[in-house]
Amino acid sequence: MRAAIVSIGDELVVGHAPESNARWLADRLSARAVTIERIVVVGDDRAAIAETIADLARRCDVVIATGGLGPTADDLTRFALADVLAPGEALRTDDEQLRRLRRRFQRLGLEMPESNLVQVRHPAGATMITNRHGTAPGLAARLGACRLFFLPGPPREMRAMFDDHVLDRLDLPDDVVGLTGLVHAFGLPEAAAGERLGPILDRDRQPRVGITVSEAILTARIQAEGAPEVARRKIEETRGVIRARWAPYVYGTDGETLAESVGRLLVESCRSVATAESCTGGWLSKLIVDAAGSSAYFHGGWVVYSNALKSSCLAVREETIREHGAVSAEVARAMARGALARAGTDDALAITGIAGPDGGSDEKPVGTVFIGLARLTAAGLTDAARHFVFPGDRSMVRDRAAKAALQMLRFALLDAPADVTLLWERTPRGLTA
Amino acid sequence: MRAAIVSIGDELVVGHAPESNARWLADRLSARAVTIERIVVVGDDRAAIAETIADLARRCDVVIATGGLGPTADDLTRFALADVLAPGEALRTDDEQLRRLRRRFQRLGLEMPESNLVQVRHPAGATMITNRHGTAPGLAARLGACRLFFLPGPPREMRAMFDDHVLDRLDLPDDVVGLTGLVHAFGLPEAAAGERLGPILDRDRQPRVGITVSEAILTARIQAEGAPEVARRKIEETRGVIRARWAPYVYGTDGETLAESVGRLLVESCRSVATAESCTGGWLSKLIVDAAGSSAYFHGGWVVYSNALKSSCLAVREETIREHGAVSAEVARAMARGALARAGTDDALAITGIAGPDGGSDEKPVGTVFIGLARLTAAGLTDAARHFVFPGDRSMVRDRAAKAALQMLRFALLDAPADVTLLWERTPRGLTA
Repeated sequence: MRAAIVSIGDELVVGHAPESNARWLADRLSARAVTIERIVVVGDDRAAIAETIADLARRCDVVIATGGLGPTADDLTRFALADVLAPGEALRTDDEQLRRLRRRFQRLGLEMPESNLVQVRHPAGATMITNRHGTAPGLAARLGACRLFFLPGPPREMRAMFDDHVLDRLDLPDDVVGLTGLVHAFGLPEAAAGERLGPILDRDRQPRVGITVSEAILTARIQAEGAPEVARRKIEETRGVIRARWAPYVYGTDGETLAESVGRLLVESCRSVATAESCTGGWLSKLIVDAAGSSAYFHGGWVVYSNALKSSCLAVREETIREHGAVSAEVARAMARGALARAGTDDALAITGIAGPDGGSDEKPVGTVFIGLARLTAAGLTDAARHFVFPGDRSMVRDRAAKAALQMLRFALLDAPADVTLLWERTPRGLTA
Repeated sequence: MRAAIVSIGDELVVGHAPESNARWLADRLSARAVTIERIVVVGDDRAAIAETIADLARRCDVVIATGGLGPTADDLTRFALADVLAPGEALRTDDEQLRRLRRRFQRLGLEMPESNLVQVRHPAGATMITNRHGTAPGLAARLGACRLFFLPGPPREMRAMFDDHVLDRLDLPDDVVGLTGLVHAFGLPEAAAGERLGPILDRDRQPRVGITVSEAILTARIQAEGAPEVARRKIEETRGVIRARWAPYVYGTDGETLAESVGRLLVESCRSVATAESCTGGWLSKLIVDAAGSSAYFHGGWVVYSNALKSSCLAVREETIREHGAVSAEVARAMARGALARAGTDDALAITGIAGPDGGSDEKPVGTVFIGLARLTAAGLTDAARHFVFPGDRSMVRDRAAKAALQMLRFALLDAPADVTLLWERTPRGLTA
């Protein structure tokens, strides 16, 4: 089967928005061994949209377009489809979709603006696709031998509608798939990760393996095609090899996040955690709470951006701050101990650092971060700190610090050897109990 | 001038790589008032590439393609161009580029693989474009009235070649630019925002205005073309009109974030803020700290995920929680008062809610969030709460809650009328002091 994907929107052709919908759809279709013939991006231009649809319908078995179904005057997709499908005929209202739309506004306790009405209108010959997550239903039609599907631009709405209503209608064979398996790691340098894999990265190897780094997360992508069982087995074999070579830095596979992996370990060991953050300002606790079910092990945290709050909330002694500075291993450890005691948890992570752009010095440049970990175990109360100098801007330093804290806790929960260092960590360590 | 951009590569049509080249080129060309007619992504397929080039050359004044100029068997761009330009004729070698290529390998002390030779060959009628950063020269040609440019895929090589060799050859007038101005708002429904703008959204208006919504932020994009001074003035005029029509929901322009806008108001009014978060888990404080310089007004925050911490850290009375539930206007107000008192700030925001996926009930469905604001002003200590039911998944509920809290503080700092409601807010309000 040959498919084309169309992304519609002025913001996409002037370079002001990333085009994630086409990428997601291409990924989804490739997973079912569909060949993507073209991806076309057009602006909010009725004639250009109509022309693109007509042209692609001649070449492909299916065309999937996203965007331009909103309620405002620059949303022209339905009118362009009408130009192709039933030129000159008026749009029709879908009564069922109109009822759904009215109910949606009622449920939210809102008055429905008149302008939303256009969203439940369709060209003659097209039918509507229900949208559970938004006000814009999709459209389905046929042009010659080609099936056309139009979905709204917001990714969450588009994705659910594609999976629920479009995929089935494509009648794709179940016995040929293109599968992708992912392995995620944090704290291992990319070049070292490549060397550890060696010939596994050869371009003609089956399954094929590639490495990418995004937001400091290292990912191995394994791609296999064929019968589902065979492809799956090939991916699992290669995945096992990569996990072993990248241990202990590998924290998860496919969709799993570092915080979810740590959460799973906390649940398994019946432990709980609290946080104390300075420069990350809540980023670490946000990552932990991103995981559904985190209330089972996360009690809470402190964002102690001012020194006064470090002392009043977490009992960090003022002398400790005066003597070593707020950004120091000693303060990181004291913050962790304070959070552990105040929250009554088994573990506590603390982060203090200089995220920039200002505040750096020769001794402690921008990017300097100390991460403290306090633990209550059979061995009693212990605490330790690691010293990092993260590269990048304010946002990158804080992101990497929050992730390094999670990996540090993960290593502790797994009893990883104490000499395993993390990327960007300075050794000898700031201070270890 | 009308342009099309073509991105060539199998990895781009299977969804495994973001297409950043097209976005960069679109941005570059738009800034010089070139209209982007289409962006097309095709795989490594000789016939599809040739067909795409021929088709776009008929519609546009210029076509810029990237990718497929490498030395391996899946690099087919030059052959596709030959099919269009001089079918049946052999490729020719460019002697000057061959010398450059040999020198490049000599300088690196490497033997030149035979396979690289193809990179300095071109179809009859085409000329080559020098690449300072890699082994792949580009190609330039004419097809009818259309100018064609082919550049290699690696962004660093492509960008330098475009700026050094392509832009000049387009003979674009220096006195005509394409400028973009953005206006950002939060809390106004998209349809209502469209209605407030009315004919400003007309497709043939100058400057042209479009509306997009991304992560609950509503953005008006204003595009003007012409002499730099004129375009700038037009954008400022339209921006003023939109700001007025969307008041008080507009918080900023161009790159400004909601948290930066609130930070600016706090600095101007010499006020400080603290946070107390339950379901958002630090997201609000993270947004505040994302703004460089936030230590001037942000003291810190509490992530009180457990009820015990709500009481022990923020002095929320256990009876209040028992009587009204942890997710209630009363608890939101008490959390805000507690944070204000403990942090010693002028303002304090508190968020308590049900982000899901579990924990909802008929009375308080998933998405129910109460946001409290405590303030110390000339009028004394006041507190109030707003009641929201946010649609979407866990992540969207939390994102919208954090942004609604910032907008609520912004309204207070600006003395916005008390009856201005926010999108997804339930009225009558939970409880207002």
